[in-house]
Amino acid sequence: MVNSEKSGLPMVDEQSEGRFLVVEVSGPNYTGLKRSALENDLDFLWRDTGYATFGLTTSDHINAMAWAAAQSGVLRVWRQESEAVLSGRTWRPSDTIIQVGDAAIGGNGVAVIAGPCSVEDKSQMMEVAACLRETGASWLRGGAFKPRTSPYRFQGLGRKGLEYLKLASEEYGLPVVTEVMSIEEIEVVCEHSDVLQVGSRNAQNFPLLKALGSSGKPVLLKRGFGCFIDELLHAAEYLMSYGNPQVLVCERGIRSHEPSSRFTFDINAIPVLKSATHLPVVADTAHGTGNVDLVGPIAKAAIAAGADALMFEIHPHPALSYSDADQTLSLEQFAALMPEMAAVAGAVGRRLDGTDRA
Amino acid sequence: MVNSEKSGLPMVDEQSEGRFLVVEVSGPNYTGLKRSALENDLDFLWRDTGYATFGLTTSDHINAMAWAAAQSGVLRVWRQESEAVLSGRTWRPSDTIIQVGDAAIGGNGVAVIAGPCSVEDKSQMMEVAACLRETGASWLRGGAFKPRTSPYRFQGLGRKGLEYLKLASEEYGLPVVTEVMSIEEIEVVCEHSDVLQVGSRNAQNFPLLKALGSSGKPVLLKRGFGCFIDELLHAAEYLMSYGNPQVLVCERGIRSHEPSSRFTFDINAIPVLKSATHLPVVADTAHGTGNVDLVGPIAKAAIAAGADALMFEIHPHPALSYSDADQTLSLEQFAALMPEMAAVAGAVGRRLDGTDRA
Amino acid sequence: MVNSEKSGLPMVDEQSEGRFLVVEVSGPNYTGLKRSALENDLDFLWRDTGYATFGLTTSDHINAMAWAAAQSGVLRVWRQESEAVLSGRTWRPSDTIIQVGDAAIGGNGVAVIAGPCSVEDKSQMMEVAACLRETGASWLRGGAFKPRTSPYRFQGLGRKGLEYLKLASEEYGLPVVTEVMSIEEIEVVCEHSDVLQVGSRNAQNFPLLKALGSSGKPVLLKRGFGCFIDELLHAAEYLMSYGNPQVLVCERGIRSHEPSSRFTFDINAIPVLKSATHLPVVADTAHGTGNVDLVGPIAKAAIAAGADALMFEIHPHPALSYSDADQTLSLEQFAALMPEMAAVAGAVGRRLDGTDRA
Amino acid sequence: MVNSEKSGLPMVDEQSEGRFLVVEVSGPNYTGLKRSALENDLDFLWRDTGYATFGLTTSDHINAMAWAAAQSGVLRVWRQESEAVLSGRTWRPSDTIIQVGDAAIGGNGVAVIAGPCSVEDKSQMMEVAACLRETGASWLRGGAFKPRTSPYRFQGLGRKGLEYLKLASEEYGLPVVTEVMSIEEIEVVCEHSDVLQVGSRNAQNFPLLKALGSSGKPVLLKRGFGCFIDELLHAAEYLMSYGNPQVLVCERGIRSHEPSSRFTFDINAIPVLKSATHLPVVADTAHGTGNVDLVGPIAKAAIAAGADALMFEIHPHPALSYSDADQTLSLEQFAALMPEMAAVAGAVGRRLDGTDRA
Repeated sequence: MVNSEKSGLPMVDEQSEGRFLVVEVSGPNYTGLKRSALENDLDFLWRDTGYATFGLTTSDHINAMAWAAAQSGVLRVWRQESEAVLSGRTWRPSDTIIQVGDAAIGGNGVAVIAGPCSVEDKSQMMEVAACLRETGASWLRGGAFKPRTSPYRFQGLGRKGLEYLKLASEEYGLPVVTEVMSIEEIEVVCEHSDVLQVGSRNAQNFPLLKALGSSGKPVLLKRGFGCFIDELLHAAEYLMSYGNPQVLVCERGIRSHEPSSRFTFDINAIPVLKSATHLPVVADTAHGTGNVDLVGPIAKAAIAAGADALMFEIHPHPALSYSDADQTLSLEQFAALMPEMAAVAGAVGRRLDGTDRA
Repeated sequence: MVNSEKSGLPMVDEQSEGRFLVVEVSGPNYTGLKRSALENDLDFLWRDTGYATFGLTTSDHINAMAWAAAQSGVLRVWRQESEAVLSGRTWRPSDTIIQVGDAAIGGNGVAVIAGPCSVEDKSQMMEVAACLRETGASWLRGGAFKPRTSPYRFQGLGRKGLEYLKLASEEYGLPVVTEVMSIEEIEVVCEHSDVLQVGSRNAQNFPLLKALGSSGKPVLLKRGFGCFIDELLHAAEYLMSYGNPQVLVCERGIRSHEPSSRFTFDINAIPVLKSATHLPVVADTAHGTGNVDLVGPIAKAAIAAGADALMFEIHPHPALSYSDADQTLSLEQFAALMPEMAAVAGAVGRRLDGTDRA
Repeated sequence: MVNSEKSGLPMVDEQSEGRFLVVEVSGPNYTGLKRSALENDLDFLWRDTGYATFGLTTSDHINAMAWAAAQSGVLRVWRQESEAVLSGRTWRPSDTIIQVGDAAIGGNGVAVIAGPCSVEDKSQMMEVAACLRETGASWLRGGAFKPRTSPYRFQGLGRKGLEYLKLASEEYGLPVVTEVMSIEEIEVVCEHSDVLQVGSRNAQNFPLLKALGSSGKPVLLKRGFGCFIDELLHAAEYLMSYGNPQVLVCERGIRSHEPSSRFTFDINAIPVLKSATHLPVVADTAHGTGNVDLVGPIAKAAIAAGADALMFEIHPHPALSYSDADQTLSLEQFAALMPEMAAVAGAVGRRLDGTDRA
Repeated sequence: MVNSEKSGLPMVDEQSEGRFLVVEVSGPNYTGLKRSALENDLDFLWRDTGYATFGLTTSDHINAMAWAAAQSGVLRVWRQESEAVLSGRTWRPSDTIIQVGDAAIGGNGVAVIAGPCSVEDKSQMMEVAACLRETGASWLRGGAFKPRTSPYRFQGLGRKGLEYLKLASEEYGLPVVTEVMSIEEIEVVCEHSDVLQVGSRNAQNFPLLKALGSSGKPVLLKRGFGCFIDELLHAAEYLMSYGNPQVLVCERGIRSHEPSSRFTFDINAIPVLKSATHLPVVADTAHGTGNVDLVGPIAKAAIAAGADALMFEIHPHPALSYSDADQTLSLEQFAALMPEMAAVAGAVGRRLDGTDRA
C-alpha cells in the first residue's frame, strides 16, 4: 500500500486481490473515466454510486491499477473479490453500528429482536413487549404485512397491526422492526417503525431495495433462501448505493436437501459475513430452524460464531398463533433462554442485551 | 364420485386424496360456512377467491367431506394435495390455452419465445424479429426493465426498450413477452406488450402478483430458483385468485450443488407440472443451463418431456450482448436449432411453431 | 405407557408416534411372528437384529400395537418415526459413552480429536502429539489410508502411517482415531488404532458397515455429504444391528448451493441428532468449513449447539501438508483456540478436554 | 497445435486451456521427470497411470508447457480443466463403444437396459427377459446384492439371484448388468454377469474402484447423488488408471431441495458428460425420478439430450416388487414406451435398440 495522502497521489493498495478493481474519485468526471476505461479494454460497471465509487473488471490487474491511479480526481484504488463495494471491509474497515435511541446493533453487545410472527391484537403485543422489557431484550418485532406462500392464508392486519406495534413500542420503550413488502407500503411502515425488514422472498426485489435506499430508516435485509452470501451483499449494495448506509444483513436458513428441519441454518455464513462486510450480522433462529426445539441450540451457536443480533418468534400462546406456530417460543421458553444466551455471549467476550438489567 | 347435478345435491369426489379439502359454493354464505367450520374443528383458509372456491384442512377427511356436503349452497367437494385450487387439474381438468392474435401457447403446438436478454437498440430488435419471422418462431421477448444482481450492471433501457419491442412487434406481427418488476411499471409494460413476465427473483413477490391479478394480460410466471414446484403453483394461485385466469408457469433452473452449469434445469418439473396444473408449461433453456452449448440438448429434452413452450435468449452478436452472453445463441445457431426441435416435437405428436411455414 | 414389568404383560407405549412399530421379543419366535404379521397385513422388516428387536409398518397403528402386544414372547412395543431402532432414544434413553482408557466421548465433557489430514512422517506425528498433550486434547487423529477424489493424488502412507500413529499414541498416551476404507484394511487398522473412522464417501458402504459390526472397536461414522440425517442413523443401525454398540455419529458438512465455503456445516444436525439418538455426536470443523478462518467460529458454535466432540485438522506447517492445507490449523492456532472453546463449553455447563490440566 | 509427428518433437497443444497440464511420455522416465518438475516448482501428481500419462498443475502454463516439451521421451503435451485424463476427450477424442456379443452401447444406437430392481425368483426373471426380447431391449438388469438404506430391508438373494440372472440371460441371449458392492463379491459377480454396476452409494468407494480396474469386465458407474459431475469423471479415472478402459458413466438423479420427486434428474449432465468424456453416457430413469409417472417423459428427454443408453426398473407386478415399487414400470407400460422412445431416437438421428426387429 502506497499511502499518499500528503503527496496528493492516489492511495493504491497493490496487495489487494480479487476480480474487481475499485476506483474512488473525488469529482464528477465519470464520463472521461468511462471513455478512458473503454479505450483500455476495461469493463466499466454501469453507474456511479453517489459515493463517487465504482468498479472495473479486467484480467490484467497490474496495468489496470496503474491506469486507474493515473486518472485525474482519483483518490484510492484497490481490488476485491466481490463486486459489492460499499458493503465491503476495504471501503470501510470498521464495524457499522445501527443505533435507535439507547438500543444498538453492531458493537460489542449482542442484541435480541423478538416478537410474534404476526401481530394479532393489542393485548398480545402488550404482553410480548412486557416480556421483552423484563428479560432485557431490546428490539420488538412483529409482522403486519405478511408474505404468505398461499393466498388463502392470513395476510396480516396491515395498518392496524402497525398501530398495535407502535403502541407497544411507546409503552415499553422498545424500537420496532417490521417487514415492508412493497414500495406502496414504505411510507406507512416508516411512520410506525424504526427498522424496516426486507424478507427472504424480497431479497432480490431490486425496485423495492432501490426505493428503500432513500427511506431514511435502517433496513434489516434477509438472505434469500436460495441465494449466495455474495448475492446478499449485492442486495445490501443496492440499498447503500441508493443512499442508505444503515443496513443489517441477516442469515435465516437456506434450502438444502435435508428434510428434518424446515431450512438449514447456514452457520458458516456468520463468520463469512463478519469477515466480508462491516455491516451488523443478524441470525434469524426461527426461520433458520422451523422447529422450536432447535431454536435454543442454534441461537447459542450463532452467538458463539459471532452474530451481532438474534431474531426470535415468541407468542403468549404459540399453539394459537396465526402463523409459524412450530418455530415460535412461549414467553416462558424465551425468558429461560435469555440467561443461557448471556452466558455464551460472555464466553466470547460480548454482552447480551439487558444482561446488566436482568 | 356421486354425480348429483340433477338431484341438486353437491358433487362429492370421495376418491380424491390429499391434505386439503376444497368446497365450491354458489352464493355469499362464507360467514356461516366459516362459523360452522370452526365449530367442527376445521382449519378455515383465509379468504374467498372471487370464484366461490376455498379450502379446508382436517385430519378426519370423511367427516369433513360429509360436513361440507351438508352445508347450504355447496356445489362440489373434493380433496387435493396442494392448497392451490384454481391452478389445479381437479378444478379445471382441460388444458388452458393462452391466445394472442394467431399465436397460442398450451394446445397441441409447441411455441417458441425468443429474443435478446436485454433490449439494446432498435436495429438489434428488428434483426431479431426478422429472424423469428423467418424461422417461424411466434413470440418475441426482450428485457427493458432488468433485475440485475449488482446495482453497477446495466439495468435496462426502460420505456425506450419497451418502445423498440413494440416497433419490432408491429413490424413483424409477433406478440411480445417482457418482464415487469414492480407495481409502478405494470401500466407502461401493459401498453407495450402482450404477455407480462414475472422473473425468478419476483416469484414470491406477493404484492406484485396480487396487482397483476387485475392486469388483464397473460402472465408468464417463472419458478424461483430456490422454490418448490408447489410454491410456483401457489404463486400462480395468487394471480388466479386475484382475478387473472391467463397464467403460464415456467421452469427456469434451480440452484443445486452442481457447479458445471449455472443452474440445474429441473426436467422432472415438466411432467410434474403437466400433471398438477392445466396451465401451459414453459421451459427457459437459457437460464436453465447458463451455457450456450447446453441450450440445444435441453430444449429438445424439454419438448420430449412435454413442455408447451420454450424460451431462448438470442442476439445478432452474442459476445457483444449487454447481459447473459454465455447463454445467448446467435441467430444462425437458433435458426439451425429450429428444425431439430421440430423433429422432436413431431416424435411426441406435436407441431413446433412455424413448422408449416418454415 | 402401561408399565407391566411385574404383570408379565408387554410394555406398550401408546403415546409414542411415528411410521414404524417396534416389537422387542425375548426368544427365537421370529418365524411365527412373521407369519402372523403377514396375516395381519403388516409390513415385516427383513431380519432380526441379534437384539431380538425388529420393526413393522402399518397405517392402522392402534390395531397393530394390540396385535403385537398379544404375541408370545413380546417384551415391549412402541412406535417411532425412523426405522432405525438401536440408535434411537426410545430403545436406549440414556447417553452412550465411548471410553478408551481415561479418555471418553459422550458424557459431560467435550472431547477434542486432532491431528493431520494425512500422516506424513514420524517427526510430524510426534510434534502433533506433543501439542495435543500440552493443550489437553485427548484424541489423536491422522489418515494413513486416504480416500482422494483423484487417483493422481497422494493416497496415504498405508501401514507405515499406522505405525507412526501408534508410536505417537504410545509415546504421549493418546488414543488414536483413523480411517478404514475397505474390509481388507480392518484387521491392520484395528491393530494400530482405538477408534475406526468411516469417511463421508463410505457413509453408505453397507458391506463395510456390516463387517465393522464385528470389529470390536468403536466406530466414528461420518455423515455422507449428500445424505439425510436419517440415513446417518440408518448407517449407525447397520453397525449396531451387526453387533457393534460403540458408535459415534459425525456431522461434517453437506453439499449445498453456497459456493463460499467448501461444504455447508449443518449446525441444525447437532441438536437433531442429540434428540434422536443416544450416540455421541461429533462435529468435524475442518471438512464442515474447508477454510481455516471458519474453523474457530464453527468449533465454538458446535459446542454451543451441543456437540460431544470436535475434530480438527492440525499440522506443524499447514502450507506444506500433503492434503487439505486450506482447512488445517497450525499448532499455534490450535493451541490458541483451546481456551476459547473451553470458555464456551463452560458457558453451556460442560468441560472441554484438558481444561483442568491446561 | 504444433503437429510434430514426423519431426520427432512432442505435439504441444498451445490452444488448450484449463488448470491441469498433461504430459504423455513414451518410456519409464518418471523419476527424472518428477525431479525436474519439483525443481521447476510444478505440482507433480502422485502416480503414473500405466498409460504413461500424468498431470501437473502450475500457474505459469506457458513456461510449464515449454518445460514439458523439452523433457526426453515426451510425446504430447496439453492442458485441461479437469484432473481426469483418460476419461477426457483430449486424450481420446472418439467415442468409446462397449460391446458384449451383438449388443453395444456408445455408438449411433440408443441402448435399453431393463429389469427388476431386485431379482426375486426364476419365473420373474424369465418373464422379464421374455419381455425384453419381444420389445427389442438388449440388456437385462437385476439386483442380487442390494444396497439398502436400512439393515431391516430385503438385502437381495445374493448368489442365488446371480444364478437366476444368468439363466434368463442364456435363455434369451441378453447380456447382464448387475451391481457389485464389495471387493469380495467381484469374482462371483464376474462369473454371472457381463457388465458390473457400481451404485450411487459406492460412487466414491475408491478401493472398490481400484479393484474393478483389473476385473476385465465393463463397469457401469453411477454418479453419487451428492457428487459433482467432475467427481463422476474422477471415479471413472480410478477405474481407467487402474487398467479398465471399458467404463460407462450414468446420471441417476441428484439430491436437491425439491421434494416432489425422490431425486432431481440432472438433464444438464447428459450434454456436459457427452462433451467432457468419450465414455458412453447412461440415464437411469428409475432413480432419477422415483416415480413411475415421470419415467416415460424423462426417458424421452434423456434421449433427446443425447444419452447413449437408458436404464429402467420393470416388473411383472410392480406393486408386489420387493423394492422400489414406486418407480417400477409394468411390462405392459414398458412395452408401450419402447416405440415412443424409438420415435424420439429417430428424431435426433439415432436408432433405439430393437427398432429394426420390433
